[in-house]
Amino acid sequence: MDLKKLKRLCVAVLMITGLPSFSATIHAVTLSDSSEVERKIALAIHGGAGTIRKESMTAAQEAAYRQKMEESLNAGYAVLDAGGSSLDAVIAAIKVMEDSPLFNAGKGAVFTSDGTNEMDAAIMDGATKNAGAVAGLTRVKNPITAAYAVMTKSPHVFMIGPGAEQFAKEQGLELVDPSYFKDQKRYEQWLKIKETEKQQLDHSSLLEMELEDIYFKDRKFGTVGAVALDKEGNIAAATSTGGMTNKRYGRVGDVPIIGAGTYADNATCAVSATGHGEFFIRTVVGHEIAAQMKYAGKSLEEAADDVVMKQLVAIKGEGGVIAIDRQGNITMPFNSEGMYRGYIREEGRGKTFIYKDEE
Amino acid sequence: MDLKKLKRLCVAVLMITGLPSFSATIHAVTLSDSSEVERKIALAIHGGAGTIRKESMTAAQEAAYRQKMEESLNAGYAVLDAGGSSLDAVIAAIKVMEDSPLFNAGKGAVFTSDGTNEMDAAIMDGATKNAGAVAGLTRVKNPITAAYAVMTKSPHVFMIGPGAEQFAKEQGLELVDPSYFKDQKRYEQWLKIKETEKQQLDHSSLLEMELEDIYFKDRKFGTVGAVALDKEGNIAAATSTGGMTNKRYGRVGDVPIIGAGTYADNATCAVSATGHGEFFIRTVVGHEIAAQMKYAGKSLEEAADDVVMKQLVAIKGEGGVIAIDRQGNITMPFNSEGMYRGYIREEGRGKTFIYKDEE
Repeated sequence: MDLKKLKRLCVAVLMITGLPSFSATIHAVTLSDSSEVERKIALAIHGGAGTIRKESMTAAQEAAYRQKMEESLNAGYAVLDAGGSSLDAVIAAIKVMEDSPLFNAGKGAVFTSDGTNEMDAAIMDGATKNAGAVAGLTRVKNPITAAYAVMTKSPHVFMIGPGAEQFAKEQGLELVDPSYFKDQKRYEQWLKIKETEKQQLDHSSLLEMELEDIYFKDRKFGTVGAVALDKEGNIAAATSTGGMTNKRYGRVGDVPIIGAGTYADNATCAVSATGHGEFFIRTVVGHEIAAQMKYAGKSLEEAADDVVMKQLVAIKGEGGVIAIDRQGNITMPFNSEGMYRGYIREEGRGKTFIYKDEE
Repeated sequence: MDLKKLKRLCVAVLMITGLPSFSATIHAVTLSDSSEVERKIALAIHGGAGTIRKESMTAAQEAAYRQKMEESLNAGYAVLDAGGSSLDAVIAAIKVMEDSPLFNAGKGAVFTSDGTNEMDAAIMDGATKNAGAVAGLTRVKNPITAAYAVMTKSPHVFMIGPGAEQFAKEQGLELVDPSYFKDQKRYEQWLKIKETEKQQLDHSSLLEMELEDIYFKDRKFGTVGAVALDKEGNIAAATSTGGMTNKRYGRVGDVPIIGAGTYADNATCAVSATGHGEFFIRTVVGHEIAAQMKYAGKSLEEAADDVVMKQLVAIKGEGGVIAIDRQGNITMPFNSEGMYRGYIREEGRGKTFIYKDEE
């Protein structure tokens, strides 16, 4: 191809002459021509934000979280390292966390006030701004795969409830009995909460309740998510959740709201959020970060920081985000006590974090 | 109050001296002190966008649409003129259109591919950025009242399906048998479409089908919406829809997505959208308009124009928006052949429009 030759020539000329003012041009050219140079890859994940304190965790609990996050990072890295897409990488990373009862997504999802597990998920492709989202699933083993099917196999972006599940079934996705998602210990805890709530006759009181069990408390906002940059220079975001503990049956948070809990655009950034979803929806968190980069000239870090540490704090919207841009910058701000999080880059060594003052 | 006296004095001084450079200050003062001066009020509505051509409408059809839109404008105006809130005004305006089979919301909603009527609605308060949204309703007579109840009577923002309807019932909202929403003529047309689609074995083909019946075609995107400015200087937005004709059971469009089909923030604007919802979600239409005003310094009209006439056109996202700001500016851009729309101001004379070249 002539265009390819021309590009190669340009890169060569610029590299030889090495004019500093042309560095941006070199970068743009290399990003759009994948055959020339080995590109940056990067992946970040989160496993939920909340009241996570070191003194409340046993060493074994902490190790279990770190190990599972590393497994998730490695699964996404394997895709990226082999030249796979950022979309496939975020799906691979999320499936590991959906399959683990440690996180509030897929197996181990929290219970609604009716005692059921209802799951939401979304995915967005920064290259095309295509997106897929699902809400109110009860039988799809990996909700993120249903979101991806909506994006790639339907003319729609968002599908909910039995209709979404019927579609997932037609697409050959793995369905399980609703009991698959149930974690017995968590169920017993939920029954206790439910009883307390009944006595208080206040459906919203649980949000402010001081629960004893730190594991249970975290899981209020225990969404999982991933953002990635692939060798082609494309970014993607994906998020999956069981929602809020003891949420009212039918309640949907920010996760499947494109622009709020999940957003990706190559021109700016890819974002996955976790936190008190109602506040994240009203702030349109993902798109607000992207808009500040695009129209206010902020960096990824500045924009994410403004939204999480100022805008959300001002309305008491607890939680955090992970975000990535095409240059491979990663930021992971949160305003809660902790956030399960981690990242991995070219060299393939995943790093994980839980508490506020780590690194 | 001293502050009040000071404000009054300032307004008087500025009005007497009449320095043009102080006009913005006078305006700001009057807006924030509701007891002094009669304020601007304004309301805009839409009844859907699509392939609406004058030559395909009978005079009687056109008159029916204009009359119902005037009724909607008058209902909202009555609230605003009496000093009511922009929230109450948009609800009043929308209920008139939900109750009319002319529009694709409430009674007369279009049919899903399963032959059911599934409705979505959302409302947002620009003063507080509180919001409420519902999706997949089948029995609430006025879906916009369910969205309002979610905003004001629950700790949640978004509720879907049977859970949302159970909540609406607990709140004492009027429920009806699903057959209430069914329009027999529309049902027969849908059956015909369904048969055609079955022969083509392509679920998405309907989106591109050239249908004979202009009324039916319009109703693909026949959402209704309203935005308003009240005497307190607060703005609000609300939207209600039956979705897309022959949509897959469980599909949700942009209407209940806060930031996409419905958005309001006193700092920028209130927006209600109508069109091919998938593209509106991916563009995060409402928040994108607000962000361009806030961070790129654009006017309401410039921002709405960029999103509807450039960004949406570039991805073939058919439809339009109505938008209002705190100064009472109204803009109603659309990229389709027509959009049912209208507005009303202080003087109480509603104006309605259907085709492209009107006014």
